[in-house]
Amino acid sequence: MANPENPEFLPEFFSPVALDKAFRLLNHGPTVLVSSQHGDSVNVMAAAWSCPLDFSPPKVMVVIDKASYTRTLVEASGRFALNVPTRAMAALTLGVGSDSASDVKDKLRKHHVETFTPTPDAVPLVHGCVGWLACTVIPEPHNQSQYDLFIGEVTAAYADSRVFNAGRWCFDGRSDDLRTLHYVSGGQFLVTGESLLISG
Amino acid sequence: MANPENPEFLPEFFSPVALDKAFRLLNHGPTVLVSSQHGDSVNVMAAAWSCPLDFSPPKVMVVIDKASYTRTLVEASGRFALNVPTRAMAALTLGVGSDSASDVKDKLRKHHVETFTPTPDAVPLVHGCVGWLACTVIPEPHNQSQYDLFIGEVTAAYADSRVFNAGRWCFDGRSDDLRTLHYVSGGQFLVTGESLLISG
Repeated sequence: MANPENPEFLPEFFSPVALDKAFRLLNHGPTVLVSSQHGDSVNVMAAAWSCPLDFSPPKVMVVIDKASYTRTLVEASGRFALNVPTRAMAALTLGVGSDSASDVKDKLRKHHVETFTPTPDAVPLVHGCVGWLACTVIPEPHNQSQYDLFIGEVTAAYADSRVFNAGRWCFDGRSDDLRTLHYVSGGQFLVTGESLLISG
Repeated sequence: MANPENPEFLPEFFSPVALDKAFRLLNHGPTVLVSSQHGDSVNVMAAAWSCPLDFSPPKVMVVIDKASYTRTLVEASGRFALNVPTRAMAALTLGVGSDSASDVKDKLRKHHVETFTPTPDAVPLVHGCVGWLACTVIPEPHNQSQYDLFIGEVTAAYADSRVFNAGRWCFDGRSDDLRTLHYVSGGQFLVTGESLLISG
């Protein structure tokens, strides 16, 4: 867990992912947490509508509603991070996807969200996740206003080496609590299941 | 399975999904098959980069590479369908995602892909899948040329009632072969796993 005395504290098993492999953190379609910061304001929301957009340089897309406080922070800072939460974080994910920081001022504390910054100037990342993609917004005003769609270029990527290494997810044989999540609706998640290798 | 003598033959358990629930077919981030037709040409490709974009009217987005034959058909017809394949279809999914119809003329036959049309004018859908979304392209030339990104409005949606009913996926207690797929890379899929219900 995070060390609240030291925001630079890095979680155990936190490992860099080569940028040309970063898309693989999202390729299986997990629900993500979008973290952002502007000035002293930090927020985290959940997003099921996110996926890779390009391999190299890696790009991602994510839908961020106009009503969200995250939208304000992302538009002001031009940056966000996508964090891949685990089965153990399902209640947290539902919580930060249901409450808005516009209404619930202590939203992160209420849902036990801890953040850390891997480098001094980085967007805060969410502790306990197993994948992280730091992104810079590629401005696309029409997509943003018409569809709430944001495109980002991935500038750094990290993963929990217990479940992602050599560019692949490897959940089998690990605690089920480290598996990733896929949100359906109404509090229902589907957990990432077995790995299946098909020879081409 | 499809009846090749009767293209209008509908698969067992094929059930309409209300348009305002259509996003739930994709909300968990499955890998999809993109089917399309122009004139007599029908094609099917796999796409991991797809997700919902709006609730109502429902919209989806999907990345369709310029080099794909599907791209030609979608641009010519202005329509496509997203089909949600099952664990039993993992080899088919990998196959239609690896071969291009530009090079492999009998691609669909080679990979045992059978299609059917739920209504006479519909885009062909892929047999054996458990979710289907028929879409009309919303023209966005900049997204299409710059990012290979296509936005579609969902005009009809269907699901296999064994694993999707009352607007929810319900894989638990059914054959694992009916579970959906999430592609990673290099022939590796992650199968959709357990359902987890969190009370808000």
